Amino acid sequence: MSEVYAARRTRLREYCNAGGSAAALVSRPANVRYLAGAAPLGAVLLLGRTEDLLVCPGSSADRPTQERPDEALRVQTLPGADGGDPAVAAARLAAGQGADSLAVEEHHLTVARHRALGSVAPRLRLANLGGAVEQLRVVKDEEEISCLRIGAEIADQALGELLESILVGRTERHLALELERRLVDHGADGPAFPTSVGTGPNAGRPGHRPTDRRVEEGDFLSVCLGATYRGYRCEIGRTFVIGTAPADWQIELYDLVFAAQRAGRESLVPGAACRDVDRAARQVLDSAGYTEGLTVLTGHGVGLEIDEDPQLSPAAMGKLDACVPVTVEPGVHLPGRGGVRIDDTLVVRPEADGGPELLTITTKELLAL
Amino acid sequence: MSEVYAARRTRLREYCNAGGSAAALVSRPANVRYLAGAAPLGAVLLLGRTEDLLVCPGSSADRPTQERPDEALRVQTLPGADGGDPAVAAARLAAGQGADSLAVEEHHLTVARHRALGSVAPRLRLANLGGAVEQLRVVKDEEEISCLRIGAEIADQALGELLESILVGRTERHLALELERRLVDHGADGPAFPTSVGTGPNAGRPGHRPTDRRVEEGDFLSVCLGATYRGYRCEIGRTFVIGTAPADWQIELYDLVFAAQRAGRESLVPGAACRDVDRAARQVLDSAGYTEGLTVLTGHGVGLEIDEDPQLSPAAMGKLDACVPVTVEPGVHLPGRGGVRIDDTLVVRPEADGGPELLTITTKELLAL
Repeated sequence: MSEVYAARRTRLREYCNAGGSAAALVSRPANVRYLAGAAPLGAVLLLGRTEDLLVCPGSSADRPTQERPDEALRVQTLPGADGGDPAVAAARLAAGQGADSLAVEEHHLTVARHRALGSVAPRLRLANLGGAVEQLRVVKDEEEISCLRIGAEIADQALGELLESILVGRTERHLALELERRLVDHGADGPAFPTSVGTGPNAGRPGHRPTDRRVEEGDFLSVCLGATYRGYRCEIGRTFVIGTAPADWQIELYDLVFAAQRAGRESLVPGAACRDVDRAARQVLDSAGYTEGLTVLTGHGVGLEIDEDPQLSPAAMGKLDACVPVTVEPGVHLPGRGGVRIDDTLVVRPEADGGPELLTITTKELLAL
Repeated sequence: MSEVYAARRTRLREYCNAGGSAAALVSRPANVRYLAGAAPLGAVLLLGRTEDLLVCPGSSADRPTQERPDEALRVQTLPGADGGDPAVAAARLAAGQGADSLAVEEHHLTVARHRALGSVAPRLRLANLGGAVEQLRVVKDEEEISCLRIGAEIADQALGELLESILVGRTERHLALELERRLVDHGADGPAFPTSVGTGPNAGRPGHRPTDRRVEEGDFLSVCLGATYRGYRCEIGRTFVIGTAPADWQIELYDLVFAAQRAGRESLVPGAACRDVDRAARQVLDSAGYTEGLTVLTGHGVGLEIDEDPQLSPAAMGKLDACVPVTVEPGVHLPGRGGVRIDDTLVVRPEADGGPELLTITTKELLAL
């Protein structure tokens, strides 16, 4: 694995050098992990002029991470309790290596930390690294996709087991906790995000936080969960009906959201504009009259964070590349009645390779449980 | 409750006006919640020259919070999906109200957001609010303490039930998940922080993340958990031995940490220097030869965040006030063998009121389970 991290750092270094900075300071945790193999709490990565360094706070010795940093990388742990801010120490080291310019993540560093960097190394020009590491992270290698694939399998298993149990009378909170327990049972590091379970009028509400409402006959039940596996986060969402037979309005709404989600999935090809993928899903709902209350996004990238670039939204810029994992997750929520959301994680693949790779394979038939 | 939030905002406004700023922008979520009663994802609070406003991102309509903002406060939700950054909108509003200076939280705002504020309202002088809201939050009112007390009761219940179950053969991860399920069962919003369960050589490691190691006869078992109740977070940590009788070294180590923790607890009086509380606990461990590998803090404040001011550490400045809730949590970890950590949440109270109020009342006897 060490070569992978070294290659990522080389790409970033080339980017920085092209922008006129001899050194870069990476502070956003997911970015540190991407380049260093691990991100101890509070650690920063210095891509230095002469050497790269993972600078860790003194307190990190108390809190070891499960992951180990790239062995090719020197790790410096600041001494003692009050060794100070690793970003400040890194700026001092960068200056000591003779760098005259340091690119920092202005979208992550606070104003107060940025000022502290400036005052400890006044001759160092602070430039902006921007979202350069986030952009490197968009296209995944097969190792990363394999972590996502295993995470999706785990989420499918947890969801499948829940469907075999008795649901009526149980609360949203309990179902969510049971799903999270099952994720860990099957080998997840933990949930990728707080598990959402919505019943009846809560079903289909995006980001719904589970309440004490109990599952009743005739309810829609919507579930959204994901596993973190070796740091990589995936997502699956399904909607079911409780009881023997769904009502007509439930079948109609389900079929509509299913058609929207399929349209989104089928438009996932390398080179497609992100806004066109969004439009493919959104216009199915629009043309059925559901223009109000739609969510901002119909999908987003996933990886070391659950919400990464690209964004699938009407205002999104840019195009999809092969090997970019995204969610496709349109939904409709009718206030007071509930709704439907269907959410998959897929990897964009060229048609010659069989088209988009579906990672979350739980059925999307409307199951009556 | 509305008067409580209004009174908090008045105190902050007085602080700002004294510093020469007519308006303040609060962006750190726990601070927004403290002053506004709720903190929808991404929302910021403007203390304006003529009116206060809670400015919410367009996407917050998708994700309602369980808490409702103070009714006396006007809420403005930015239109549509791409309504932009609420902080930028708030700066524009502040300028529109005729403010010439806006105090912002430089320890929370990123450099990129700060710059966006400056460019949207170039005549507005951006000042630094610093940790003013965090300082207001240190001393709690009885309503806040009552939330912490209920949270502590919930954590005590969850822990008590776990102790009655069979532990040998179960993994750290499972025990941690079961504790979190029980917290929610008993009415917590959720865990206050990721529950830590350490067995054998992992016992007593601060911030240990649960692994697949199973509980064995003769192990130390250390558990650290907490409940969030109405946003307030408490903490309890206990260490047990598994089997019929603890070994001599286990009894000795336990007695030592217990003595250190008691010394810390007993020094919690209004007016005590934070570093003296730390020293009281730390010197018990020091004098027994455990100088290496001690944690940075022997305790910290709790409230809307699990790690607040004051810090109980050798370098801490400042003194304790009455009605400040803190943890006291010294521990010793022997690499390869395990260790002991004992952690309580208490409220500093004057001696006339009975001295420090212990919120987490689970026994601190060395139980053999």
